[in-house]
Amino acid sequence: MRLRNVKNKQEIMDASPYLIQNPKDYYGKWDTVFMNSNPIYLEIGMGKGKFILENAKQNSNVNYLGMEKQDSVLAKGLLKIEDGVPNLKVIRGDAFEIDEMFSHEISHLYLNFSDPWPKKRHHLRRLSSKIFLEKYNSIFFKTPVIEMRTDNLDLFQYSLLQLSQHGYRFDDLSFDFHKDHEVEITTEYEDRFSSKGNPIYYVLCHKENVN
Amino acid sequence: MRLRNVKNKQEIMDASPYLIQNPKDYYGKWDTVFMNSNPIYLEIGMGKGKFILENAKQNSNVNYLGMEKQDSVLAKGLLKIEDGVPNLKVIRGDAFEIDEMFSHEISHLYLNFSDPWPKKRHHLRRLSSKIFLEKYNSIFFKTPVIEMRTDNLDLFQYSLLQLSQHGYRFDDLSFDFHKDHEVEITTEYEDRFSSKGNPIYYVLCHKENVN
Repeated sequence: MRLRNVKNKQEIMDASPYLIQNPKDYYGKWDTVFMNSNPIYLEIGMGKGKFILENAKQNSNVNYLGMEKQDSVLAKGLLKIEDGVPNLKVIRGDAFEIDEMFSHEISHLYLNFSDPWPKKRHHLRRLSSKIFLEKYNSIFFKTPVIEMRTDNLDLFQYSLLQLSQHGYRFDDLSFDFHKDHEVEITTEYEDRFSSKGNPIYYVLCHKENVN
Repeated sequence: MRLRNVKNKQEIMDASPYLIQNPKDYYGKWDTVFMNSNPIYLEIGMGKGKFILENAKQNSNVNYLGMEKQDSVLAKGLLKIEDGVPNLKVIRGDAFEIDEMFSHEISHLYLNFSDPWPKKRHHLRRLSSKIFLEKYNSIFFKTPVIEMRTDNLDLFQYSLLQLSQHGYRFDDLSFDFHKDHEVEITTEYEDRFSSKGNPIYYVLCHKENVN
């Protein structure tokens, strides 16, 4: 997502009780961040954070982490979080370093409307490429679960193939998520896209325990 | 596929050296039909047989079986096979009885443009339902391989989910098979459908050895 530069973004970030600016400091000890041992669900590329915030508000027995690498987007998201959501934290970071942030601590990974990197030579940058799927192995606690939404058919095709080839089995799959399901919590992007009548592609999958 | 009744279909069937009218008689001994131990590839629902015939002519070191349950369609197909294709046989039979026809003898299964059975209450009749996937386990020799083409998105979605849940991993997957691949051998139905510019959905998958 591209956003205009947010001028006071550093100020917003410094002031937010929700932001974790150096996630690698918590490698192996995320339970100390939330001060409980509830499962941790992570969204890579949280954008302005509507999806992860709504989830956190609705499910108090799950800890939520939203990751975002663009400071301007991150700052916009932080401004939207009201007080009193103890089970939500926001990480400033790049997914490429995800295996340096978590050590078998994530129960569920959301990939919502990730960058499709349409050019063939950029395919390994996709969050469902083998590079990332291999990194994810070391972040998951017990059963790896990935839940993905996209409007990009090419990315979806690629992702189904990659996920399957890396041992994930599909628990749910849809070529028109909003037709097949009553979708309660959406992303900002999803709302705009779906309101135009375009289909959202969806997959939920898991694989055997990694630890 | 619906076809007008072929009046002399019994006559055509009785006269054809390619037809096997009682496939259950060869359970466990299909090598005696082809008189060699080459791998056997099976197409369920061969229709008028263009796909399986072309494959047989191009790959003499593979044995091909086309199965068809509708006699009128079968008779039309038999008329099209010229002399001298020793690695092709046609089976008159219903896929529901497939586990009574083969005992770990099939290397590759083609499901081309199978009946989509669109009504929910008929989904178990789909050739990729759990009922059939469980039957297939006992027909495959070593590594089960299924290759599927369809123009029906709902059947495709269902099939990907079922295949994945029954342990199949995807080796190739396409939402527009004729765009993504140079497709040499097609079915009659595929030609008509594809010439209108409609996409063909495609998956090739395998699972671990069953024996």
